Amino acid sequence: MTTSPFRDPPSLADIEQAAARIAPYAERTPVLRSAVLDEQLDCNLWFKCENLQRAGAFKFRGACNAVFSLSDAAARRGVLTQSSGNHGAAVALACRLRGIPATVVVPRSAPRMKRDAIAYWGARIVDCDTHQAARDAATEAELESTGASLVLPFNDARVIAGQATATAELLQDQPQLDTVIAPISGGGLLSGAALAAHAHNPDIRIIGAEPSGARDAFDSLASGQRITGRIAHTICDGLRAELGPMTFDLLRSHRAEILLVDDSETVHAMRKVFEQLKLVIEASAAITLATLFKYRDRFRGKKVGVILSGGNLDLDRLPWQDPT
Amino acid sequence: MTTSPFRDPPSLADIEQAAARIAPYAERTPVLRSAVLDEQLDCNLWFKCENLQRAGAFKFRGACNAVFSLSDAAARRGVLTQSSGNHGAAVALACRLRGIPATVVVPRSAPRMKRDAIAYWGARIVDCDTHQAARDAATEAELESTGASLVLPFNDARVIAGQATATAELLQDQPQLDTVIAPISGGGLLSGAALAAHAHNPDIRIIGAEPSGARDAFDSLASGQRITGRIAHTICDGLRAELGPMTFDLLRSHRAEILLVDDSETVHAMRKVFEQLKLVIEASAAITLATLFKYRDRFRGKKVGVILSGGNLDLDRLPWQDPT
Repeated sequence: MTTSPFRDPPSLADIEQAAARIAPYAERTPVLRSAVLDEQLDCNLWFKCENLQRAGAFKFRGACNAVFSLSDAAARRGVLTQSSGNHGAAVALACRLRGIPATVVVPRSAPRMKRDAIAYWGARIVDCDTHQAARDAATEAELESTGASLVLPFNDARVIAGQATATAELLQDQPQLDTVIAPISGGGLLSGAALAAHAHNPDIRIIGAEPSGARDAFDSLASGQRITGRIAHTICDGLRAELGPMTFDLLRSHRAEILLVDDSETVHAMRKVFEQLKLVIEASAAITLATLFKYRDRFRGKKVGVILSGGNLDLDRLPWQDPT
Repeated sequence: MTTSPFRDPPSLADIEQAAARIAPYAERTPVLRSAVLDEQLDCNLWFKCENLQRAGAFKFRGACNAVFSLSDAAARRGVLTQSSGNHGAAVALACRLRGIPATVVVPRSAPRMKRDAIAYWGARIVDCDTHQAARDAATEAELESTGASLVLPFNDARVIAGQATATAELLQDQPQLDTVIAPISGGGLLSGAALAAHAHNPDIRIIGAEPSGARDAFDSLASGQRITGRIAHTICDGLRAELGPMTFDLLRSHRAEILLVDDSETVHAMRKVFEQLKLVIEASAAITLATLFKYRDRFRGKKVGVILSGGNLDLDRLPWQDPT
């Protein structure tokens, strides 16, 4: 995997600086509740609505922090990333707001609507094959030819610090939380959540919700060895990445717990969010509520912050609808 | 139509009392923005998210105000209403919260999911035929046998005062608005909006968004005569009622302007709300955005408060999806 020059994990000061840096651009997303879901699960849930974030996902926080932390000289050469989804659109929007060029290396397997979003925000798209070696080769070639700054989706301290601001805001609004749950893919969101939460209260439980068909984080943390090179099988198109070295280390040191759910459970929970919370979220976000339902005994009576990570999906057909 | 004993329109004091009365039960719903929609329409929009209200619609405000303003003696005999949709569920939830029985007269043509919601909150359902005479006959029979208090969906000062609190909150948050737009059906929401807005600033324009296929409000206000007895043809199942005497008078005296849109325009706008605002709303709520798009020249440069009235709909199939 192409590596980032930002290899040291972010400090609390980095997170506070990120919050200040993105404040003029990012939404302070609302925190919603549902009396019906609280009753069904016999616990207290606070939903941090990152589907209402700009460009429709928490990814804008990290991208915005990275893009706006560049020097003017570096910024003029533009920003490069590789992404099949929300991170690419987030980088594109952040670069548009800064007025600098963005290039996104996109595998041909990326969902069409996510590719459209990257283009909508004005980024140049470089197509490549899906496997990581092809993505890295295309990225390296672009780096050399453009001199752009690389802003990777998760294994980058600037990005993790940005993602951490979602949890920091949630805990400012609801300081009494004892548990925070977020989806896990590359681990940027969850390691950011762990950093922000444990700065607030070291006893907060950090839960990562992971698809059974993409369980590298579960197996990596269980075995103590970062597992790579698997092929993910899940409808959660945002949860197919693997942990990076930085996020792996952070999640280990913060004792994050990973729980696995099947896609069918996620689809069921996704519909529940549409029905009860009246929010459009993607499957990769609904996996949090699916986890709460599946392991409800572990959350009974708890005060749980739930990061609803994003809301970008194809509305031509929803996953619970029969194929036409 | 069965009439309510509350024939005098609400005063500003009534609206303030309603706000205090419902505060322990109702959500103070968030106000959301969309940079994309503002750019597309060249105006500034603030969306008051009543789809995030309890029971999924603004209707809970009016129902809650009416139910909690009953004396203990009257409350013990229960509450009766007639509704094919959100008002019925709202009355059912309000009665559950007060711990008193609710009965809802429901026409057999009501959408199944709205009927289910009424039952979910514990109300007793009395089925009847769809035409107004049958609904009134069933209502009268129930009134006689139960001695319950009647809480009609819109032609009731307690209900209008409750609905007005949505606009009052919006203007507390965004006092600079020059326009408020809401859907119009029986007129409870829009006349409440007019009362609250003009108490704040008499120059605020009040716009009602009405389906072309259910244009009784448009024709009534244009002709100065309340038109009744038509059959509505619209997918906006919440917008098929006709103005009552009280709402007709209020809308005339507050110079509300009605704009008509076709269902196809509403469906297009509904998808836009799902995509851009990441909110689940019903067609009856999306008609506001459809109106802004259709008549965009009238709103250019304006500061518009948009009441997204509700989010209860059948998610098995969305209206922009081809029939299977």
